[in-house]
Amino acid sequence: MQFDTVVAGGQVVTAADTFRADVGIIDGRIACLAQGLAGSAAKVIDATDRLVLPGGIDAHCHLDQQSPAGINHADDFLSGTRSAVAGGTTTIIPFANQRHGQPLRLAVDAYREKAEKAVIDYAFHLILCDPNAGVIGQELPSLIEEGYTSFKVFMAYDSLHVSDRQILELMDLSRRERTLVMIHAENHDCCEWLTEKLLAEGRTEPRYHAVAHGDPVEREATYRAIALAEVAGAQVLIVHVSSGNAMREIAAAQQRGIPVLAETCPQYLFLSEADMDRPGFEGAKFICSPPPRERGNQELIWRGIQTGVFQVFSSDHAPYRFEGTGGKGRHGHDAAFNRIANGVPGLATRLPLLFSAGVRQGRISLQRFVEITATNPAKIYGLYPRKGSIAVGADADLAIWDPGRKVMIRKEMLHDNMDYTPYEGMEVEGWPVITMSRGEVVCADGQVTAERGRGRFLPCDRIQEMKAWL
Amino acid sequence: MQFDTVVAGGQVVTAADTFRADVGIIDGRIACLAQGLAGSAAKVIDATDRLVLPGGIDAHCHLDQQSPAGINHADDFLSGTRSAVAGGTTTIIPFANQRHGQPLRLAVDAYREKAEKAVIDYAFHLILCDPNAGVIGQELPSLIEEGYTSFKVFMAYDSLHVSDRQILELMDLSRRERTLVMIHAENHDCCEWLTEKLLAEGRTEPRYHAVAHGDPVEREATYRAIALAEVAGAQVLIVHVSSGNAMREIAAAQQRGIPVLAETCPQYLFLSEADMDRPGFEGAKFICSPPPRERGNQELIWRGIQTGVFQVFSSDHAPYRFEGTGGKGRHGHDAAFNRIANGVPGLATRLPLLFSAGVRQGRISLQRFVEITATNPAKIYGLYPRKGSIAVGADADLAIWDPGRKVMIRKEMLHDNMDYTPYEGMEVEGWPVITMSRGEVVCADGQVTAERGRGRFLPCDRIQEMKAWL
Amino acid sequence: MQFDTVVAGGQVVTAADTFRADVGIIDGRIACLAQGLAGSAAKVIDATDRLVLPGGIDAHCHLDQQSPAGINHADDFLSGTRSAVAGGTTTIIPFANQRHGQPLRLAVDAYREKAEKAVIDYAFHLILCDPNAGVIGQELPSLIEEGYTSFKVFMAYDSLHVSDRQILELMDLSRRERTLVMIHAENHDCCEWLTEKLLAEGRTEPRYHAVAHGDPVEREATYRAIALAEVAGAQVLIVHVSSGNAMREIAAAQQRGIPVLAETCPQYLFLSEADMDRPGFEGAKFICSPPPRERGNQELIWRGIQTGVFQVFSSDHAPYRFEGTGGKGRHGHDAAFNRIANGVPGLATRLPLLFSAGVRQGRISLQRFVEITATNPAKIYGLYPRKGSIAVGADADLAIWDPGRKVMIRKEMLHDNMDYTPYEGMEVEGWPVITMSRGEVVCADGQVTAERGRGRFLPCDRIQEMKAWL
Amino acid sequence: MQFDTVVAGGQVVTAADTFRADVGIIDGRIACLAQGLAGSAAKVIDATDRLVLPGGIDAHCHLDQQSPAGINHADDFLSGTRSAVAGGTTTIIPFANQRHGQPLRLAVDAYREKAEKAVIDYAFHLILCDPNAGVIGQELPSLIEEGYTSFKVFMAYDSLHVSDRQILELMDLSRRERTLVMIHAENHDCCEWLTEKLLAEGRTEPRYHAVAHGDPVEREATYRAIALAEVAGAQVLIVHVSSGNAMREIAAAQQRGIPVLAETCPQYLFLSEADMDRPGFEGAKFICSPPPRERGNQELIWRGIQTGVFQVFSSDHAPYRFEGTGGKGRHGHDAAFNRIANGVPGLATRLPLLFSAGVRQGRISLQRFVEITATNPAKIYGLYPRKGSIAVGADADLAIWDPGRKVMIRKEMLHDNMDYTPYEGMEVEGWPVITMSRGEVVCADGQVTAERGRGRFLPCDRIQEMKAWL
Repeated sequence: MQFDTVVAGGQVVTAADTFRADVGIIDGRIACLAQGLAGSAAKVIDATDRLVLPGGIDAHCHLDQQSPAGINHADDFLSGTRSAVAGGTTTIIPFANQRHGQPLRLAVDAYREKAEKAVIDYAFHLILCDPNAGVIGQELPSLIEEGYTSFKVFMAYDSLHVSDRQILELMDLSRRERTLVMIHAENHDCCEWLTEKLLAEGRTEPRYHAVAHGDPVEREATYRAIALAEVAGAQVLIVHVSSGNAMREIAAAQQRGIPVLAETCPQYLFLSEADMDRPGFEGAKFICSPPPRERGNQELIWRGIQTGVFQVFSSDHAPYRFEGTGGKGRHGHDAAFNRIANGVPGLATRLPLLFSAGVRQGRISLQRFVEITATNPAKIYGLYPRKGSIAVGADADLAIWDPGRKVMIRKEMLHDNMDYTPYEGMEVEGWPVITMSRGEVVCADGQVTAERGRGRFLPCDRIQEMKAWL
Repeated sequence: MQFDTVVAGGQVVTAADTFRADVGIIDGRIACLAQGLAGSAAKVIDATDRLVLPGGIDAHCHLDQQSPAGINHADDFLSGTRSAVAGGTTTIIPFANQRHGQPLRLAVDAYREKAEKAVIDYAFHLILCDPNAGVIGQELPSLIEEGYTSFKVFMAYDSLHVSDRQILELMDLSRRERTLVMIHAENHDCCEWLTEKLLAEGRTEPRYHAVAHGDPVEREATYRAIALAEVAGAQVLIVHVSSGNAMREIAAAQQRGIPVLAETCPQYLFLSEADMDRPGFEGAKFICSPPPRERGNQELIWRGIQTGVFQVFSSDHAPYRFEGTGGKGRHGHDAAFNRIANGVPGLATRLPLLFSAGVRQGRISLQRFVEITATNPAKIYGLYPRKGSIAVGADADLAIWDPGRKVMIRKEMLHDNMDYTPYEGMEVEGWPVITMSRGEVVCADGQVTAERGRGRFLPCDRIQEMKAWL
Repeated sequence: MQFDTVVAGGQVVTAADTFRADVGIIDGRIACLAQGLAGSAAKVIDATDRLVLPGGIDAHCHLDQQSPAGINHADDFLSGTRSAVAGGTTTIIPFANQRHGQPLRLAVDAYREKAEKAVIDYAFHLILCDPNAGVIGQELPSLIEEGYTSFKVFMAYDSLHVSDRQILELMDLSRRERTLVMIHAENHDCCEWLTEKLLAEGRTEPRYHAVAHGDPVEREATYRAIALAEVAGAQVLIVHVSSGNAMREIAAAQQRGIPVLAETCPQYLFLSEADMDRPGFEGAKFICSPPPRERGNQELIWRGIQTGVFQVFSSDHAPYRFEGTGGKGRHGHDAAFNRIANGVPGLATRLPLLFSAGVRQGRISLQRFVEITATNPAKIYGLYPRKGSIAVGADADLAIWDPGRKVMIRKEMLHDNMDYTPYEGMEVEGWPVITMSRGEVVCADGQVTAERGRGRFLPCDRIQEMKAWL
Repeated sequence: MQFDTVVAGGQVVTAADTFRADVGIIDGRIACLAQGLAGSAAKVIDATDRLVLPGGIDAHCHLDQQSPAGINHADDFLSGTRSAVAGGTTTIIPFANQRHGQPLRLAVDAYREKAEKAVIDYAFHLILCDPNAGVIGQELPSLIEEGYTSFKVFMAYDSLHVSDRQILELMDLSRRERTLVMIHAENHDCCEWLTEKLLAEGRTEPRYHAVAHGDPVEREATYRAIALAEVAGAQVLIVHVSSGNAMREIAAAQQRGIPVLAETCPQYLFLSEADMDRPGFEGAKFICSPPPRERGNQELIWRGIQTGVFQVFSSDHAPYRFEGTGGKGRHGHDAAFNRIANGVPGLATRLPLLFSAGVRQGRISLQRFVEITATNPAKIYGLYPRKGSIAVGADADLAIWDPGRKVMIRKEMLHDNMDYTPYEGMEVEGWPVITMSRGEVVCADGQVTAERGRGRFLPCDRIQEMKAWL
């Protein structure tokens, strides 16, 4: 065998195993795992003392769209995917948003066009704000055929939230068509009512966002989403779970045999509501929905990762700049909490934060790290076996980690278009020193080398039954 | 590269992945995973349309010892390991039993001698019935160095059960030495008291075994074992969990962050207390401790496998013949339930039963199958990465499965010394058609070809922290 | 002291005590508890070998209104209260229904007029289908002053159900004004969606009502109602809890310190979904919402009564005749389940059923019986200490029970206007042989002797904090 | 009617009701409840603006015995019962202790003799440290006939703890004879092992008592006691529950229908482990078993009282003086925690502490207060209806409370023989200003007026089934 590239001398890591092997790559795919391949390679990448991991899949991120209130994301597919590879991620699944009154295909097509700048491969989830009969009966079945098989709905947000009935219809479709409904679980009426009450009481500072989106607000919607799935007989995935109590309801449902999947994000492990209470307007930087909870809640989320309640770890990258007319501060630094865009960036920091606090500090194994950051997302969303693992025949999407490298996170190294990171100044141990996409080095030593537009669209397979891949 | 053997054309399966690849073997180890290797092999095994799985590890079986009441096991290391390979298992971990008043090393040495007949590799757990100061202070530390790192204790059985204090001492050692305490969790006093009560009432039939070892008896001891682990700050593994309620206590502890591991067995998925109530003395065939529960309980045990409460699936092979002076019926076919040896055979049937009802019937994925039957046992008990997966550098212990083969289980095909199987007549789909140990075919098409004594002792590494490999 | 009436020689029973005492009555109130009072009485009622209990309070019943679909109740305040006294009940709390677009006071006034026929005292809950700003800001505060302090809302039913937001507003009012929100907890969208699905599949028989209103439908709404109460910081009472799983969520909330009250009804102890599956159209007789569940669920509801999860036991009397143009069969005996009026009668049978299966069969004490059928309803809804117990100063509302009398329930003995009872033919032990209202015998030996219109309206006090009276 | 005494003008309070009535007393018993009785009385006690409550029953206290380590209690039946009446308690149930190797009757007779000094009525529990066949087969059946119907066993303490087998035998007897087993639930081996470990590490200060008797130690034994009760089919009562987690296990068992009763004590509501960490040797004053937990645990115990997990509230008065040769400090003020007597006094403070923090601060109702301090203990232990309530025919054991009186607790006002109270300096609102026993004032305005030896022994009835009186 003759290889285009061999990654030589590293410890190959999958969601099951760690073993010393060279990775032989031909035509962008992994052709061979064995030792001693370097001699048969056109190009050798030395991975001695390095871990060779599947490139991360970030299954929840927002790029080049607008917030419900019309604020533009700071990142488009170019800056977004450049930031991704800087952090060891090689596939992203952002959301194509349905617009009220427009054909869904229009939204999908427009977003496909925007995506052409991407430097790595990507698939799409669809956000549905109006899953009416036409959408469910005609548009979706045809889009599903083309590889759009996961649909996110919101139980909160003015312009976005759908009714229980609509969720049921969508779940019913998903059961029939083997697709997946993803749920943003917060009770709309509660958020709205609490917000009005807080504003009426003059409680407008950023930290009141955590009250308006308090634990019962998330917990209720989570429980409801699960009950709807039971009624519809469908699988469901709860995205960005923040509250340990909401997580317990998910765990209880799983123990009862209900097929509920769940995702959590770095902001719920590394941030807390105390951050929203930082002096001045600083707290605005940490506003996202659902919000980070009290510090003790972080331990519960870790436990959910350890015990398998969570299958997916995503960034929920939602890039709103702090300064400027398009940012969190566009209504001034004394704006009420409900006028501040919801979201934090995280494409580049997702993996290093989890690697450091998870793997290096002994909370999780390397295998669990790979599983929730790459293998599971690929399997759940229909990208496996092409993506998500290091196996013969898979795309050679790799992240080569220096497990001992100590890095202090600085906004400047993240390659996004943001003007802040909520993790500024945090020290991590372990860093992806080389990122490869389909056999090509797209980032090395902090330099993004990928060409604009080299990324390709990935049609997603239908979603398997949870029990079959768990 | 030139291979001794290539397994060609199959779907390679690990606890994370399924991919089409040939497996190239050199010196009994896996040297290469790639397609198109057949041309470079001295010997090619065709695995077209087959699944190539890691050989099973049966981490809980009893061979060539005596029951607490002095009944000899029907199987020694020769018949036992022959039966194992017939069912796709390539490594076993039976128990060397401490004898009261004898040095532990004596027991270990004697058992090592018995094991020399084995046709596949093996490690030992130690059963400790008297973990006194000498055992804990001197004997164990030296045996640990030699690769005996897991210790089973009984909370029930006259001659075997140890006190809470002894368990604490042993757990304390295990915490310091990074070894593992395995618990047979039944409350001795409850078993004894219930047994005497039942006998006094004339309730002597086999089915009363299920009453004397009822759900609260197991549940209590399980809860206590976990609490002792909390007090000692140690990991613990609960073996052969039968009751879904006991399992719930384990799950609850895991959710609270307590490092509890758990094992279950085929008898709790495929048998029920109704079997002990079969006419005449037939019920005796199904007596084991803890006993199979009511039929509805099986569903709970499946759920524990699905959600990860259980990490290990073992046979608890305890071979007592039905007929003859050394068997279940040695006190006659009207013997009271407490005079019947506890245990069922299962070395050969463990994997096909789980594959069929689990993988083929859609309850679990191939990955979960491999994880709980091979990869996890290897990782937990310190045999990984040599055993338990298909990865470069690992021993070429493989089970080549025909996933569609339909087989009716018959005692005759199991290669053990038993005169019955509790699974007689069950139909399964999927069967291990070739079993390989260190690159050598040890069983093919139901013929065991392994030479007596080719198996080797495997010293176990110290036990890692649960969180690090979970 | 000179008494108008003395109830002599009985065992007086309260929610705390049982003691032998005569009850001396003056001016319709209990003036004295002592032995040997018979000599000082104008009239003596012999209660030898009898239990003297507080008359029952039926805190949930429907009279002289229409179903959401416009079907008239068979009972008005005359027949309804006559039926009540026949079963030992001396106070009822039916519902005055708000009409869309009408002032609330109009509804209340009209219902007060209808109530003038009552033979026993009564208070009102209000059913709110449109708790808009005017209702909450103006109408309710003034009605609260007049003694209307409990408000029921529906989370299901086309014309009735309110939004989460409306519930929050109402709970907020209730927190401020110390009133109580009562919740009919079923998820509207789920009922509607399931109904349409079942009908589309041709599943129209009465038993499909149990599917359209299945366990997750009730459980979800129950959980949501509790979460809304947490958000609003208010007390809440879940009416007619049917599902043992919904009950568990209530119990869990109570254990977390959330002030949730709960009511259950005879239909959930004595009927099951199997009744809805009786041959022909018979099943229609048992349709109510939420529906009776599988038989095993009854045991869970008993447990909730035993352990105090339920504070109130009411009939939810909703009298729709089986035959005739105004009844369950008005659309014919092959009408789909969703066209059958929801509700079963139960004013007269509530107490004898619970007494027999609860007290006589050893499930609950006499004290718990009195507590949940009389004392707690009086305390919760602001009628205490005038109603609900046997204490000096309280109204002499008494039910004198023959605890050993065996009665077979027959429609004919119930004094209502119904043409069936779902409990036809059931045998009970224990029967209220004399019922007294304010010192006057209103029913004796099955003869209702009360004069039309002798009942009086009872304004309710504001609701105390749960913790203060629990 | 002519009364010996009338308590006039107060609010009479029972476990169900509060009503204004005079209490007419003849021959030490309550003869009449009515208004306007004062004119017919030889003696009138003015209770205007006062609450008239049943005198408290302290169902768990230790008098005139020795600690396991041989330390004498500071209080005998004279000082103990004087202290009781000073705090509104009119009945006590201390423990007659079995001695190893002595007939049980000897212990009972000797303790009956000691009790002759009592100023109020008393019953006995028996502490069994050696429930052998003779005790269970002969001694107990005859003692049960004489009114000893509740038996306490210890799962910890060197000289006292019994085996699971012995508990089963005792529970079996209790099931047959309708008596009750009370459990001190701590795991002996855990306490012992932790103690030795702590001492070996030089951790000897009082606060380490809380570690040696940590939460899992109590929780495990609680769970085991419940399981034993399930196995034996008997009721069980867990005494002095300290840990909120242990309480949750009790609540869970109750929800599953297991007849488990539970008691808690003031030390678990008003003290915390921080008290054991007071400077110098002060912490020794707060050492008891199980120990008070962290401050947050108090809230859980309150919740257990509110939701009915606990049926009984007792003092567990165990009076060891702080100074002197017989006290906590007898081994010097640097004695290791395990050499300090376990126990705190509380006969006089039990009711005022609960009344103030419970009733006055709105945590519980007056009814719940009466229920758990008087009515329930009387019903559970077979003293009802003679004791425990205010009802016609009951003993006139009354505590007349000034609900608004503010008192700072001082050792001097408690009438015991102790030299400290753990509640020194706490402010309470509400105080029992007059205590009456069988119609006689035994304490008024802090002066104990009762004559030595006026108390009588109360034989206890057999224990009813929990469900019948719950």
